[in-house]
Amino acid sequence: MSEQAEKFGFTLKATDGMARRGRLTTAWGAVETPVFMPVGTAATVKGMMPDSVKSTGASIILANTYHLMLRPGAERVARLGGVRKMMGWDGPLLTDSGGFQVMSLGPLRKLDEDGVTFKSHLDGSKHRLTPERSTEIQHLLDATITMAFDECTPFPATKPVAAESMALSMRWAKRSRSAFQARTGYGQFGIVQGSVFPDLRAESVAALEEIDFEGYAVGGLAVGEGQQAMFETLEVTTPLMRQDKPRYLMGVGKPSDLVGGVARGIDMFDCVLPTRSGRTGQGFTRRGPVNLKNARHADDPRPLDEACGCPACSRYSRAYLHHLFKAEEVLSLMLLSWHNLHYYQDLMADMRIAIEAGSFADYEANFHAMQAMGDIEPL
Amino acid sequence: MSEQAEKFGFTLKATDGMARRGRLTTAWGAVETPVFMPVGTAATVKGMMPDSVKSTGASIILANTYHLMLRPGAERVARLGGVRKMMGWDGPLLTDSGGFQVMSLGPLRKLDEDGVTFKSHLDGSKHRLTPERSTEIQHLLDATITMAFDECTPFPATKPVAAESMALSMRWAKRSRSAFQARTGYGQFGIVQGSVFPDLRAESVAALEEIDFEGYAVGGLAVGEGQQAMFETLEVTTPLMRQDKPRYLMGVGKPSDLVGGVARGIDMFDCVLPTRSGRTGQGFTRRGPVNLKNARHADDPRPLDEACGCPACSRYSRAYLHHLFKAEEVLSLMLLSWHNLHYYQDLMADMRIAIEAGSFADYEANFHAMQAMGDIEPL
Repeated sequence: MSEQAEKFGFTLKATDGMARRGRLTTAWGAVETPVFMPVGTAATVKGMMPDSVKSTGASIILANTYHLMLRPGAERVARLGGVRKMMGWDGPLLTDSGGFQVMSLGPLRKLDEDGVTFKSHLDGSKHRLTPERSTEIQHLLDATITMAFDECTPFPATKPVAAESMALSMRWAKRSRSAFQARTGYGQFGIVQGSVFPDLRAESVAALEEIDFEGYAVGGLAVGEGQQAMFETLEVTTPLMRQDKPRYLMGVGKPSDLVGGVARGIDMFDCVLPTRSGRTGQGFTRRGPVNLKNARHADDPRPLDEACGCPACSRYSRAYLHHLFKAEEVLSLMLLSWHNLHYYQDLMADMRIAIEAGSFADYEANFHAMQAMGDIEPL
Repeated sequence: MSEQAEKFGFTLKATDGMARRGRLTTAWGAVETPVFMPVGTAATVKGMMPDSVKSTGASIILANTYHLMLRPGAERVARLGGVRKMMGWDGPLLTDSGGFQVMSLGPLRKLDEDGVTFKSHLDGSKHRLTPERSTEIQHLLDATITMAFDECTPFPATKPVAAESMALSMRWAKRSRSAFQARTGYGQFGIVQGSVFPDLRAESVAALEEIDFEGYAVGGLAVGEGQQAMFETLEVTTPLMRQDKPRYLMGVGKPSDLVGGVARGIDMFDCVLPTRSGRTGQGFTRRGPVNLKNARHADDPRPLDEACGCPACSRYSRAYLHHLFKAEEVLSLMLLSWHNLHYYQDLMADMRIAIEAGSFADYEANFHAMQAMGDIEPL
């Protein structure tokens, strides 16, 4: 940490409708919002060098508590100086609480009032996460932003089930807050739950504000409810949230999710989609997604996205990228992950500019018109 | 090509015993020798961006005719501007003739006086290579250095078999030379065969010099004969070869093979070992090879090789590299391939300096002493 670490804070610089243009300051650097955070699950953004991640425009990344506590282990990461130092990322880092991954384990996990016991997907070994242990692990990982430990309510859930789950998450949020060791420039976010029920979301927002976090996430979305239900839930949730704190929509999403999320007052996003799609041959472009494995690219000398300045687009043809995917060369996923992350960062930068200009509605209309055009025709 | 393309040529700048310090000039840049050429089989050095390959110190790379003729196809590569342009490599490129890979296909290939018919390992489709077609393909690939099409004599071979095989390769060398389309700054190398038989090697050298190539390779080694037999064969072969032309030992090798090859008058090498080992966790260091998957590295905060300036060694701990290999993260092979290529280039640069200084014997003794020390002890 620098000798005079910057305090953790959020400044709202401009708004345009519900869309917000802000700046998050942390001990490890500032983050212009709205922001997309690339996911570095196991302390590496898959297929990318950290300086390449930074070159796409990324200012903050995410790592996963669940994966890192199992391998290489939180105490070991702490001995190596934390995730940031270990992986050579010199910006701020957000860690999730492990709650979402543990819930995804299904029959491998058992939940009680105090926490969750689960078996590792790696070797079947038994582990336990509680609000206190999750918060301690995130401290050991040296997370710049720590997330409260919660239960990600499954979808669909009946209202009584969603209410009970949300109430548990709020009790866990309080315990997570008590366990958090405050440090200058570091923060902790609470997570709003309540499934798709507006009154439960409202109750959750109020409960978290009572506890008082440095930021607030909207959780329990992008779990199968579909974009429309997600947007509707945001529309009844973000207006209740504090203006002066950052708002983070967890695990989202497709480009249109990001644009719609920003339009509904979200400041921060994370998703594995750009890197995961990069591994399977799906490239995101200004004219919609493109599958580079498709044979129509085999002789196409043009770049994937002519408006993109990433190495994949500025140095290579679709034909070469197609060849790399057919030959299952590692460079295929390296280049396409790079492109997709670059595209996502360009998307966020464009939205930040549009909000500042007060033209976000036009930006949004243009975004959808361009996506609807579809990919350029083969030569 | 620049308007005034540099002529293809070789200048011997210094010698020290049999070791040679030279400079190869080509249309696409100069190459200081002795040189190690990273292998980019399918028009990509596996796991590396071309600018990263260059940053290791590499000045020339190799690509494989066999792989590229099958996928994406030589004519397609030609339409995309050749291998160099397609893959974004701005230095010279050497292609092999396809002969070695085709011979490795065993029962999938059938040899006759005119050439070889074989089935693709990808889809079983039938293909044919002759000296003329191999040379044409290498032209389509835009190889800066084209290799003559030959039969890589299997090892072990009886003397009559080796003699017959060598004689066929010499007839094919003549046909390859006739098929070669000369261009300023481009060259073609003949390949000395003759297995481990000194008189056959001598006969082959004479036959090739009669044809007159821009350079000469020693082929048919590193095929199971062992380092001692390889060195002995070099010792009876390189003294017969022209002083004023580059000498290339194909498919070699381990660090000690390179040092021993240079000591015996070789100027150029290529091998998949640095990148292949990088994928399996074996790192080459000044103190010998290290297996990063070994649990002893799990908590070691020290770099793989303290004297190395590559990103893997200058930014990361052994503990992190070990973690990446255990987690099967793509970054593991990216970093270790990078390190291994960097190590190989450092090795060649050190040898070039030692030859200039007239201290190659001391260099060689020191190299072996350091390798024999073994890896640093765990903390």
